[in-house]
Amino acid sequence: MNNLIDSLNWRYAVKQMNGNVIPTEKLDAILEAIQLSPSSMGLQPYTVLVIDNPGIKENIFNNAAMQPQIKQSSHLLVFAAWESVTAESIANYIQLIAETRSISIDSLAPFQNALGGILARSEEVNFDWSARQAYIALGIGMAAAAEQGIDATPMEGFNSDKLDEVLGLKAKGLKSVVLLALGYRDTEKDHLAEAKKVRRAKEELFVTI
Amino acid sequence: MNNLIDSLNWRYAVKQMNGNVIPTEKLDAILEAIQLSPSSMGLQPYTVLVIDNPGIKENIFNNAAMQPQIKQSSHLLVFAAWESVTAESIANYIQLIAETRSISIDSLAPFQNALGGILARSEEVNFDWSARQAYIALGIGMAAAAEQGIDATPMEGFNSDKLDEVLGLKAKGLKSVVLLALGYRDTEKDHLAEAKKVRRAKEELFVTI
Repeated sequence: MNNLIDSLNWRYAVKQMNGNVIPTEKLDAILEAIQLSPSSMGLQPYTVLVIDNPGIKENIFNNAAMQPQIKQSSHLLVFAAWESVTAESIANYIQLIAETRSISIDSLAPFQNALGGILARSEEVNFDWSARQAYIALGIGMAAAAEQGIDATPMEGFNSDKLDEVLGLKAKGLKSVVLLALGYRDTEKDHLAEAKKVRRAKEELFVTI
Repeated sequence: MNNLIDSLNWRYAVKQMNGNVIPTEKLDAILEAIQLSPSSMGLQPYTVLVIDNPGIKENIFNNAAMQPQIKQSSHLLVFAAWESVTAESIANYIQLIAETRSISIDSLAPFQNALGGILARSEEVNFDWSARQAYIALGIGMAAAAEQGIDATPMEGFNSDKLDEVLGLKAKGLKSVVLLALGYRDTEKDHLAEAKKVRRAKEELFVTI
């Protein structure tokens, strides 16, 4: 097992994958890490679609995201944020906390009240907030994939309206925000496979006070 | 060393810290992981402030973020996204790639062209996009802290305008988006220290197609 820094040095945004399928236990470990990802208030205001169906990947490639990794991936993850946060989703969450911790819903009244503040915000603000939470899960998912020796390419440059249409997300109150293609790098075809990692110098990225 | 899933199960958003200082090598490992965090196009459009000065933490607590972890933390990280993406920052990035990989700037023309698309977007869209990239680094930073056995509490509920004022961020073209307090849990004072982790069931969070 590698430590996180080794994993992060090993990974890169693979441009060409070889189509090999990743083992179920590795996929499960990546999904479990995503499930465990922190989020504001713990609400996890997103859904992750896990796609390995070649026909659907082809459809996504043709209509919403022309990147080759869509078809070359073993599994394509679509992070879709909640279009809006509803009173029902908050009530469900409070119920989940009460059940998980075997405590009364009444004892959660102060927390439920704090969560109520979310409902007072505009739908736009909440969607943006939900998208940010999904990006935390994206980060954790990329770390998990690298730990498993699985390549993972994050992708933003796609037509989210079209993708939502292909996957019927609007009817579910979801909007796609970012993709993560999981698979294996094709070291012969990918000219970036051996490229040195580029990162801003610590002296620039960090300001110590 | 723990694997990522053990680390994620160990961590939680600590509500009370004990003020102990974290060792330099553990802080360095967390910052290195943040530095290695992926971002769209690799641009890393954010700065991370690393604050251990008690006077500044006090000032932040009094004026921008009343959470006790601000003062109880060993180090407070402030993730500040670029208010706008400039042609200069893109030119600097291209320069950095060329230097790191010992290739010519000319050979990067197609990539520089793609990056130019960012400049065509509104400042608001770019700030939101930069903030999302910072959330990837936040996620990686939380994973790194947990791997090091360091507690890390992400915090959003603060007054970003006031915080930017305290830290003079506006003059640097930055806007604070999320905080991460690093330190050690105070297991006696924190009523959540022994609470069971609450996460949405896999059957709800994931849709397999």
